[in-house]
Amino acid sequence: MDHTSKDLNNLIDLMAKLPGLGPRSARRAVLHMVKKRALLMAPLANVLAEVAKTVQECLKCGNIGTSDQCDICKNPKRATGEICVVEDVSDLWAMERSNIFKGRYHVLGGTLSALDAVGPDELRIPRLINRVFEEDINEVILALNATVDGQTTAHYIADQLSGVTVSTLAQGVPIGGELDYLDDGTIIAALKARKKV
Amino acid sequence: MDHTSKDLNNLIDLMAKLPGLGPRSARRAVLHMVKKRALLMAPLANVLAEVAKTVQECLKCGNIGTSDQCDICKNPKRATGEICVVEDVSDLWAMERSNIFKGRYHVLGGTLSALDAVGPDELRIPRLINRVFEEDINEVILALNATVDGQTTAHYIADQLSGVTVSTLAQGVPIGGELDYLDDGTIIAALKARKKV
Repeated sequence: MDHTSKDLNNLIDLMAKLPGLGPRSARRAVLHMVKKRALLMAPLANVLAEVAKTVQECLKCGNIGTSDQCDICKNPKRATGEICVVEDVSDLWAMERSNIFKGRYHVLGGTLSALDAVGPDELRIPRLINRVFEEDINEVILALNATVDGQTTAHYIADQLSGVTVSTLAQGVPIGGELDYLDDGTIIAALKARKKV
Repeated sequence: MDHTSKDLNNLIDLMAKLPGLGPRSARRAVLHMVKKRALLMAPLANVLAEVAKTVQECLKCGNIGTSDQCDICKNPKRATGEICVVEDVSDLWAMERSNIFKGRYHVLGGTLSALDAVGPDELRIPRLINRVFEEDINEVILALNATVDGQTTAHYIADQLSGVTVSTLAQGVPIGGELDYLDDGTIIAALKARKKV
């Protein structure tokens, strides 16, 4: 495109690499930012530069933050006896939004996968096992996705941690869920885990 | 959210303001950028800061560029006798991608709208009329959207420019279009404008 400046083209190309954006929505986003230069574009440039400079993984749990220990690991109010194991930082954020878990986390950075040749050493599994014994953990809660790889990973970790209480999230009908729209697997899991009222 | 740093939260909030992104996709985009810090996040921060500093509207046509005259108005190879009138910069970019028009542009910045109280003076219509007489224009091509407001604006401009050749884009069946999927208005327009083969 010779009709826009090099910087603008460059910006559109980079924006189009973000997940959920393509060339068309990247152009739309850039035009929107140009219109809101002072309110959106300049602040976004600043905070992006700041985050790009400071963001790093927590050495302990794998969460992202702006120092080598994340805000959760640093927080003395978080319970120390419980670790919630999640696949990815986005899962940690989802757990935190629900505001129900008061302990600390451990981010694996993925799941075991035979197809993609991901073994325990590619994930933060050895580090988790060390942490459980170093930090005197009572309960490890596996909050892994209910996918085949997620469940395989959960079984592997439970095997490695014999002697410690290991639990997983309950499976069943989601709140607001309608049976007619649920898959068979969910209905089977919900029936097997039925509770007396 | 007290579980992520202030900068990260800030970045997510700003990204969520872009068109086409909401809180969920903004979080996803930010995590993706954190993973590709050197390849995506840092370059994006740089080019965003550069564009935020330099971008401006072309004083002549309203296109955006990095100086007070855009790359198209500056280009001596572009034909000088024709002006293509578009609603927005995104429409200018769409015209340029098709690579068929070799003249110059005029970006109105919107359409006349009684509902939103947008009159000719809120748009670049007076500036267009001045340009047509100052620059010795032979033909004004109205490439406005085929919406009610777009067509109202086209009629208004055509009225103001009596004495100059004013044309509009042809209306009809889009290339690759199937009649079964077209609205009645398009079929009526295409039939009225039918051509001998």
